[in-house]
Amino acid sequence: MLLVMSKNATEKEIEDVIGAIKEQGYTPRPIPGGERMSIGILYNKGPVDGSLFLGMPGVQDAIPVTKPYKLVSREFKPEDTIVSVGGVKVGNGHMTIIAGPCAVESEEQAITIAQKVKAAGADMFRGGAFKPRTSPYAFQGLGLAGLKILEKVRKETGLPVVTEVVDITTFDQVEESADLVQIGTRNMQNFSLLKRAGASKRPILLKRGMAATIEEWLMAAEYILAEGNSQVILCERGVRTFVNHSRNTLDLSAVPVVKTESHLPIIIDPSHAAGKRDQVIPLSRAAVAVESHGIIVEVHHDPGKALSDGAQSLYPEQFEQLCMQVKTIFNSLKV
Amino acid sequence: MLLVMSKNATEKEIEDVIGAIKEQGYTPRPIPGGERMSIGILYNKGPVDGSLFLGMPGVQDAIPVTKPYKLVSREFKPEDTIVSVGGVKVGNGHMTIIAGPCAVESEEQAITIAQKVKAAGADMFRGGAFKPRTSPYAFQGLGLAGLKILEKVRKETGLPVVTEVVDITTFDQVEESADLVQIGTRNMQNFSLLKRAGASKRPILLKRGMAATIEEWLMAAEYILAEGNSQVILCERGVRTFVNHSRNTLDLSAVPVVKTESHLPIIIDPSHAAGKRDQVIPLSRAAVAVESHGIIVEVHHDPGKALSDGAQSLYPEQFEQLCMQVKTIFNSLKV
Amino acid sequence: MLLVMSKNATEKEIEDVIGAIKEQGYTPRPIPGGERMSIGILYNKGPVDGSLFLGMPGVQDAIPVTKPYKLVSREFKPEDTIVSVGGVKVGNGHMTIIAGPCAVESEEQAITIAQKVKAAGADMFRGGAFKPRTSPYAFQGLGLAGLKILEKVRKETGLPVVTEVVDITTFDQVEESADLVQIGTRNMQNFSLLKRAGASKRPILLKRGMAATIEEWLMAAEYILAEGNSQVILCERGVRTFVNHSRNTLDLSAVPVVKTESHLPIIIDPSHAAGKRDQVIPLSRAAVAVESHGIIVEVHHDPGKALSDGAQSLYPEQFEQLCMQVKTIFNSLKV
Amino acid sequence: MLLVMSKNATEKEIEDVIGAIKEQGYTPRPIPGGERMSIGILYNKGPVDGSLFLGMPGVQDAIPVTKPYKLVSREFKPEDTIVSVGGVKVGNGHMTIIAGPCAVESEEQAITIAQKVKAAGADMFRGGAFKPRTSPYAFQGLGLAGLKILEKVRKETGLPVVTEVVDITTFDQVEESADLVQIGTRNMQNFSLLKRAGASKRPILLKRGMAATIEEWLMAAEYILAEGNSQVILCERGVRTFVNHSRNTLDLSAVPVVKTESHLPIIIDPSHAAGKRDQVIPLSRAAVAVESHGIIVEVHHDPGKALSDGAQSLYPEQFEQLCMQVKTIFNSLKV
Repeated sequence: MLLVMSKNATEKEIEDVIGAIKEQGYTPRPIPGGERMSIGILYNKGPVDGSLFLGMPGVQDAIPVTKPYKLVSREFKPEDTIVSVGGVKVGNGHMTIIAGPCAVESEEQAITIAQKVKAAGADMFRGGAFKPRTSPYAFQGLGLAGLKILEKVRKETGLPVVTEVVDITTFDQVEESADLVQIGTRNMQNFSLLKRAGASKRPILLKRGMAATIEEWLMAAEYILAEGNSQVILCERGVRTFVNHSRNTLDLSAVPVVKTESHLPIIIDPSHAAGKRDQVIPLSRAAVAVESHGIIVEVHHDPGKALSDGAQSLYPEQFEQLCMQVKTIFNSLKV
Repeated sequence: MLLVMSKNATEKEIEDVIGAIKEQGYTPRPIPGGERMSIGILYNKGPVDGSLFLGMPGVQDAIPVTKPYKLVSREFKPEDTIVSVGGVKVGNGHMTIIAGPCAVESEEQAITIAQKVKAAGADMFRGGAFKPRTSPYAFQGLGLAGLKILEKVRKETGLPVVTEVVDITTFDQVEESADLVQIGTRNMQNFSLLKRAGASKRPILLKRGMAATIEEWLMAAEYILAEGNSQVILCERGVRTFVNHSRNTLDLSAVPVVKTESHLPIIIDPSHAAGKRDQVIPLSRAAVAVESHGIIVEVHHDPGKALSDGAQSLYPEQFEQLCMQVKTIFNSLKV
Repeated sequence: MLLVMSKNATEKEIEDVIGAIKEQGYTPRPIPGGERMSIGILYNKGPVDGSLFLGMPGVQDAIPVTKPYKLVSREFKPEDTIVSVGGVKVGNGHMTIIAGPCAVESEEQAITIAQKVKAAGADMFRGGAFKPRTSPYAFQGLGLAGLKILEKVRKETGLPVVTEVVDITTFDQVEESADLVQIGTRNMQNFSLLKRAGASKRPILLKRGMAATIEEWLMAAEYILAEGNSQVILCERGVRTFVNHSRNTLDLSAVPVVKTESHLPIIIDPSHAAGKRDQVIPLSRAAVAVESHGIIVEVHHDPGKALSDGAQSLYPEQFEQLCMQVKTIFNSLKV
Repeated sequence: MLLVMSKNATEKEIEDVIGAIKEQGYTPRPIPGGERMSIGILYNKGPVDGSLFLGMPGVQDAIPVTKPYKLVSREFKPEDTIVSVGGVKVGNGHMTIIAGPCAVESEEQAITIAQKVKAAGADMFRGGAFKPRTSPYAFQGLGLAGLKILEKVRKETGLPVVTEVVDITTFDQVEESADLVQIGTRNMQNFSLLKRAGASKRPILLKRGMAATIEEWLMAAEYILAEGNSQVILCERGVRTFVNHSRNTLDLSAVPVVKTESHLPIIIDPSHAAGKRDQVIPLSRAAVAVESHGIIVEVHHDPGKALSDGAQSLYPEQFEQLCMQVKTIFNSLKV
């Protein structure tokens, strides 16, 4: 933390700030400048709350110098983390394709789609059993029955399954059925849920919040690692901006930034970013070209009858084409 | 819902869309235009999922015409809802002032501040016992001990108390201790928590999500009303934008819009919007001038030592000045 | 500027950065920290381009410590600037009301509206002669004929007039006719136009760009002052965000921030922020409550027939009510 | 345009709206719905200004149904436009690489870089002679001398050159020297400049405004086409959002949307989107994978000494690597 004093801060004000820093157990280091004094705060353990000093007379600005995250940081663990999901590896050199419907609607629907996406090249199956919906009147998912269907999908196809958990109450059951437990965008800062995920035996797929900075996102992951679960996969799914031609704006520069800052794998969800089918394939190609560790894509064999998110779900043939294209790009980059 | 067909949609495509609308149990109404056909969808109960049709050949756009909320809408209940919190009325003609520290830190701290804000003119006391914090290493609140302190505050000062609930697990206890239960920004779309709030006997203070549209916010309130609890107060606290001179951007136009769309009261939190003390007083005045139903403000008797959000907490003298100013404005508008 | 080195920066990298700072003619000051080295850059004249150093090996971050603006800053000129517009004072203690139609449509229209707004309490008349329109097919204003009408308005009513200038070619004529020359949102960073404005004999009304930070906005004003014209009034008119219930999001916290950072007056345009009539009156009240130096409001005697922006134009009776309310608030705050 | 009436609109209000539509010369078409009336507006030429009706009693919403752009639309011209720039083709099946420094600094610098980027595979040279800079005290470009250097670059290397024009005054000279005339982000809605560009004999590179919707951007292009110049290349360069880890957020979904809506080619500027060198290469790969028609990249042989934007400029070796990667991806997608 660097405190910048205002140009006309008095000696007394500067001394008071230095005293306040010491009182917190930190080490102040005054840095006289051309026009004003700055004061570095050193040897702090954990993040310094700049607001402690910002309100003091003469203090103009409090600038964080170091990042608040630890366990998720590459400084802490330089080598890439590879997360294993039911035998499928995610991270460092692998490009994983996860596909399936927005929601599990029936056993027949789920298995039909799972077989199609497996044949096309998917490594894992996705499908929601508990669905967080904006409207209380919209289809909320099959719940526990959906989890049972997911288990059948795994048994029938051999694909590991990923599904979302929406609260602590149902965490045990989701954890029991899923190979990878998803925490959704709207729960990225549901800290109770994050702590529970930290105590889970399953790897966690942590989606970025709709308006989260990368720092906040990594801090959310830090909650999980701090409780003992280091198997976290990050998932960029678009952020909310003024742009109205897609549901969200896919922030692909998050990929190089996360890969620099953290050792955790990062994948891309082009379906929720786009919200429209015809953007999903180009954005998937871009996700692989930017060297994310994989994609998670919505596919439905009959999108016009999907109970949710039909417009962004690919037809199986489109998904097949997508798989071929992203694998071509992935291979071309390996050379 | 209005479906706009593309200019060169074929007869067959139009017929297919009409068929698909009927299949969903809705009534299609073709509207030939100068250059293209549009098709209205009528007599739907609940929101129509445009995505069902958007993916069909020839469909260019699906435009929602009606709002998805019901119980919270003014069309459903034309007269203003007044929420009673421990005897204090919020809404329609009242201007309520809620004040207190970000977090309850000790009995002495809480009661000291409560007495000061009461003397200055506050109607209710705020103070966090469970604190949702970005960092797992930051102070997380006193928890149950904090709730006990809040009960003492009420007993000592007579002020009703409001505090945040962060999960279902602790809802019973929070509900027991608080007069008004707050659901915070990060949990605005924690639907499990919203449903639990809908079953509560206490009124709920529902903060707007950091990137929520008013429609999403009202739909979150709809979750609570749909479960049977109609005592909901909305709270605007700033949204996330590119602007970096305040922590968030206070969206005051939300007040006239919410008052037009809904019968629920709406108050303003200038402290979290600003993030900096010197913006809190002017924004509070603006909040009253725009005719919100009240404000919720952070006050600390020793902000430099606050365990959280010190920089945005007012000194008691500042809060006193604020109360005088906002009451002056409120009264001037009544004439 | 503070350069933060990465944890494992080598001695050699640190030396190279120090050398590069000296090469630019600045003074480096190494600041050893607990875990990493930071290096302050001192005695620079003008802004330091952090990008010069950001790309060097071992440099993790370049953090600006001081603000880039000079002539517009309060540090440079501590006392408030009062701008005089045809005898009407704007700034420091005055609350100025500017009103009129979006566009001048005819002599009759302009004079009718001017008389009405004057009677209601306006201090100045606004009306566009050159209109920047999103569509090339939309009404672009009366041009020079519009300027002549504005001169007549001043002659008839005694109100000073403000109108927008859109390019250098027509600057002379606009300057000749107007008492206050407006540079619009879309031209806030049209630097050629800003330089021309800096050479003008007229005061300038500089609207904030739709996505401009306060720093960029003040730097745009700096362009004008740097060319010799210190008579600049800033105008906040809403910024572009994800929010869709108003045309733009009015950023009222800009007022306290600008008043701290700069000596220039700042007024509010609630009409363009809202885009809808029913938000204009509440936002105008808020603009005065936040202690801006005035408002600029669109009024039309027959909004249903306005050639542009009819939906956000107030009826004269509404404007009259607005004037009464904002004056009441303004007076109540003076006590 | 579809006008949605409120649920309790009276017969009289509906009739008044129908009358107002007719008065404008349009055809009203009432569409009775389940709960409310909607009224379509048909046979309009040019965009209908919804604000004309929005303010009328009983009107709840005015929803645009058709797009306002014409000449730029794919409905108007179904086949792709290919723009020829000094013999280099841009659009439909071509992937064009434009590279060079942010600013032309000297003949030696420009030619050195031009030779390097040509050798690496660039098709065109970029370099600013007139630089729009946030600060009036920053390097503003070499001006006319810069244009002369660009002519030498073309002569020496055979590469067509692109450079920015910032005002009408210097348009003739820029047009004389450049093969492709760039209109920058800050001037996207400088309509006088757009009209002048429409009268130019040169193709125009139109960058997207920092907060422009695709509709506004296409309307800006429409200004150019409406004046007679149909040789326009669009350039996405990132939009302003809350995201702070890159200078702007690159909106790659703009590519499929623009390609659906318009026949004009679209290229990507990853350098200004990123603002940091290490994001430029991955974003360039993504730009090609998403099937834009090319990229424009900043390259400098000595970025540490660049007079502007050094941190985002690639080293020539990095650019060489980038060219190989993007060509590999481009070729892999052709198969």
